Amino acid sequence: MTQAAETKQRLREICRIAARVFYAKSYDGASMQDIAQAVGLTKAGLYHHVGSKDRLLYEIQNYGMDILDETVVVPIKDIPDPREKLRQTIFGHIDLIVRARDQEITVILHENRSLRGPLRKKLNARKRAYIDYLVDLITRVQEQSAGPPQVSPRLAAFALLGMINWLYQWYNPGGRIKQDELARTYTNFFFRGLLGIPD
Amino acid sequence: MTQAAETKQRLREICRIAARVFYAKSYDGASMQDIAQAVGLTKAGLYHHVGSKDRLLYEIQNYGMDILDETVVVPIKDIPDPREKLRQTIFGHIDLIVRARDQEITVILHENRSLRGPLRKKLNARKRAYIDYLVDLITRVQEQSAGPPQVSPRLAAFALLGMINWLYQWYNPGGRIKQDELARTYTNFFFRGLLGIPD
Repeated sequence: MTQAAETKQRLREICRIAARVFYAKSYDGASMQDIAQAVGLTKAGLYHHVGSKDRLLYEIQNYGMDILDETVVVPIKDIPDPREKLRQTIFGHIDLIVRARDQEITVILHENRSLRGPLRKKLNARKRAYIDYLVDLITRVQEQSAGPPQVSPRLAAFALLGMINWLYQWYNPGGRIKQDELARTYTNFFFRGLLGIPD
Repeated sequence: MTQAAETKQRLREICRIAARVFYAKSYDGASMQDIAQAVGLTKAGLYHHVGSKDRLLYEIQNYGMDILDETVVVPIKDIPDPREKLRQTIFGHIDLIVRARDQEITVILHENRSLRGPLRKKLNARKRAYIDYLVDLITRVQEQSAGPPQVSPRLAAFALLGMINWLYQWYNPGGRIKQDELARTYTNFFFRGLLGIPD
């Protein structure tokens, strides 16, 4: 492994552990001392790796967007049919949100207000890029379908993000509704809302 | 005004101010001293009114549920047609979420993990009652419609809650999309998703 790769891997490890601490104690409730202890570093060692608490929050959120790209967007980038690509995007995004392993990291993406200045701008640009990806996909699905567009692609994209990102508030993967059923139901619901016809 | 009414009004006033402080500094980031200062009480005076920081969070969330009942559910309780009632519920709930005045209070309703024990239970019971109200309404809309149900009423209710409650993350009431257009688009989108036909 190159040194850059090692540094990246080490940073991701710190992000994963820090996200769990923030998840348990909240961003404001957790101190850098709490995080250093959980990671197994001195406080000075932690600051050496991440710079500041702000920067650490940014790195975690940036890592969350990396995971979204790596596990949802990139694996399906060559699917030519927009409808199939949108369907797989929804399945992948739902999987990401309900998967316990990364939940601390994806939930922290909503901790928007705690970031300021250029770090906040950089992160918002990444979030916007994902929204633009959805808007483009939805537009192409609408163009492919027979009827006139029923809804603006951007409003539809935000409706979809709301449905999916809200799952962490109520969905229990060990409960009665299986993840596969949830993903199928939500996908069909979204396509009906989008196109006005059963999918 | 009776003394009970005065006490209630005073508590709500404290809740409104405290919600703004929590919104700005986060629940864990704001101290009882910060809140006492914003309310114009001594710390002892604040504790006299609200008991504890936990209890204050509970009172704010409980007030948020009161507002939901008073402004969304109660005014339309006598509408007999389930479809019209659901439509007005969606309009009312969207209005509540995007209205700037109460936003600090409704956003704090998502601060779930900070409450524990009996207070958490009491609040979750109120949230469940609202979900049951939606599920019942959606079921009646489905029964009234011609085709077979396309989606479980409970999953549809959570999809709707996700779409609406997520608005605070992105919707800007002063921006290009007017609230009325948003409400109509979301309502029609939801009805299409629910029934599979243009509303």
